[in-house]
Amino acid sequence: MFSRKEYKTRLNRTKQGMLQHGVEVLVLSNPSNMCYITGYNAWSFYVHQAVIVFIDEKEPLWIGRGMDAKGAELTTWMKPENILHYPDDYVQSSIKHPFDFIAELLLEKGKGDRKIGVELDAFYYTGKCHERMLIGLPEAELKDTGRLVGWVRLIKSDKEISYMRKAAYIVEQAMQAAYDRIDVGVRENDVAAAIYNAQIYGSDTFGGDYPSIVPMLPTGEQTGSPHLTWTDQRYKKGDLVTIEIAGAYRRYNVPMARTVSLGKAEDRVLDVGKVVLEGIEETLAFIKPGHTAAEVSSVWTNVIAKYGYEKESRVGYSIGLSYPPDWGEHTISFRKNDNSILEPNMVFHFMPGMWYEDFGVSITESILVTETGIERLTSFNREIYEKEVE
Amino acid sequence: MFSRKEYKTRLNRTKQGMLQHGVEVLVLSNPSNMCYITGYNAWSFYVHQAVIVFIDEKEPLWIGRGMDAKGAELTTWMKPENILHYPDDYVQSSIKHPFDFIAELLLEKGKGDRKIGVELDAFYYTGKCHERMLIGLPEAELKDTGRLVGWVRLIKSDKEISYMRKAAYIVEQAMQAAYDRIDVGVRENDVAAAIYNAQIYGSDTFGGDYPSIVPMLPTGEQTGSPHLTWTDQRYKKGDLVTIEIAGAYRRYNVPMARTVSLGKAEDRVLDVGKVVLEGIEETLAFIKPGHTAAEVSSVWTNVIAKYGYEKESRVGYSIGLSYPPDWGEHTISFRKNDNSILEPNMVFHFMPGMWYEDFGVSITESILVTETGIERLTSFNREIYEKEVE
Repeated sequence: MFSRKEYKTRLNRTKQGMLQHGVEVLVLSNPSNMCYITGYNAWSFYVHQAVIVFIDEKEPLWIGRGMDAKGAELTTWMKPENILHYPDDYVQSSIKHPFDFIAELLLEKGKGDRKIGVELDAFYYTGKCHERMLIGLPEAELKDTGRLVGWVRLIKSDKEISYMRKAAYIVEQAMQAAYDRIDVGVRENDVAAAIYNAQIYGSDTFGGDYPSIVPMLPTGEQTGSPHLTWTDQRYKKGDLVTIEIAGAYRRYNVPMARTVSLGKAEDRVLDVGKVVLEGIEETLAFIKPGHTAAEVSSVWTNVIAKYGYEKESRVGYSIGLSYPPDWGEHTISFRKNDNSILEPNMVFHFMPGMWYEDFGVSITESILVTETGIERLTSFNREIYEKEVE
Repeated sequence: MFSRKEYKTRLNRTKQGMLQHGVEVLVLSNPSNMCYITGYNAWSFYVHQAVIVFIDEKEPLWIGRGMDAKGAELTTWMKPENILHYPDDYVQSSIKHPFDFIAELLLEKGKGDRKIGVELDAFYYTGKCHERMLIGLPEAELKDTGRLVGWVRLIKSDKEISYMRKAAYIVEQAMQAAYDRIDVGVRENDVAAAIYNAQIYGSDTFGGDYPSIVPMLPTGEQTGSPHLTWTDQRYKKGDLVTIEIAGAYRRYNVPMARTVSLGKAEDRVLDVGKVVLEGIEETLAFIKPGHTAAEVSSVWTNVIAKYGYEKESRVGYSIGLSYPPDWGEHTISFRKNDNSILEPNMVFHFMPGMWYEDFGVSITESILVTETGIERLTSFNREIYEKEVE
């Protein structure tokens, strides 16, 4: 939980964004944004819910399902009157919809003719949510305010950074648990279980939260595709495995990926690995406030091009507070044409995964932008780990 | 992985639903529905993707991000030509959108003037996805086909039921792990870690998959709200804890909730528990093919009313294949006005949680509807567990 002062700062920055977008009311649906503004923390985002910010009101509203309202009272900073809920027959009904309730509420509050911002592409703000808003608020002007709160979240407070340092500690432990457990004859799910145990145990002095993405552990030719999870197959000698996981502390996620070979790795894998390591060193040395995300991407592109390699996908993105299904913040990406300017206290997952037809190499770093450059949040050997096997 | 025959049956039933809805093309966005139709299994649903079914084509199309296409080739049954991907600069961009790509593709295939079904309220089909479809396909008639595939999923095949039996075994083990670990002085996250370990380990002969919802472990007054997860606080003597978790096997989820007291439970808790147990017995005894979901709900309501209790929220819902954020199928709910008729091989989570201002009792059963009644998928003592503590 953050101080009232910190929530007030977040809210004021959000209201400043609302002014820039020209909206008096902002309807948030992304659970990460809802939590960022109010503190609300529960796995209830499988039903529709919203946080509504009014430019002229001190406290936002939380609206969700009846059984979750108590959880909102317990986890948010607002007064209980600002926690509202819709009846249970609105849940997953083909007749009633929670956004009918929300539109009606805005009408009752006299906001039916206002400029209202919505997160049109946010997780859980479905086409139907927007349809019900359009139909329920015919006099309003609905505007897509996009990632407004995402941009506010970009620069972290000292307390947020302290949370991310704890998450970074956890991901180091979880990766070490994977390194220790993985072996010929061990099942993929048993490695996943060891990772989970470390992620949730955390440390002796603080506990882990659930990361926003489950362990991703593709093996063999599957390493050509990064988002496969695991099976109950047993590892064989010579298997290549990419491991992409996060540590999480109070919803702040710090990811890391490494590549493991059970026994000696193939030359083509080691060759890619060597180029990736050089690319990481040179790119991280370049990153500092004032440079753009596109410039960061181009340093990477130039290093690997020297060796004849190229990569189509982005090489990183901002991270922080998050809920499933993603630990990225969806604002800055390290890629061509992203001219966002880096500033101190932004945090990124530098993610230069290389994926081919039947193998891949993933080695990544989560980094904090400082006044003069970057600080790596984790300290974990980056080389391809060739585990000795029988 | 299911047989080609089973996927063909699923596809044909889906096409039958398309005929009923009057659409020639169906765009699926819910990852559970995408997997049900194609087998696609990866944690890639944090970027937009779709499976498209054409009423006059044998195989659906999968469309996603470039780095995920290989995973689609490896996990789906379709020919590689039916796996298509959009360029990476469509990912989380404020300029390009994956559904621009999808609309363009439909135009190129000559489907721009067709009746096209979309899952308007599906997870991950955002307002923006629908906007891009409307703008990109001005001659098409877009129709909300709602939970079309959800209704197909409702009746499980023998193989699906065999998967759910494995998931049921896993949730029993996970609940036992929680019972064993929870104690005065233990941290909430340590109980969560024990649950995870059992969930992912599975059994000696098959491994566990990740459940679609993380362990929910509210403690003390938090038990009045079911979807809170955990903290790193240590349990105290007298704490009441509700534990709602699932076991998962190859994406099939079987949930279970139980209520634990560290030491003697309060009378008000035991009183509710007693009524809940009687309500469960009587309601489960009533369930059989031919009865409606509303009738099931009313048996429950009548039992608890005898003791002066009432419950606003639904008392259960269909379950099966699922991805985060939900293990429910969003079709049948046990509640007033849901006149869906029960049939053999439907599977439900009977979930009569009772939540009050400062405490709650959750005791649930996952059940299979048989030819003559029901079979409980799990066998685990239902009583409130008053653990002996120091």
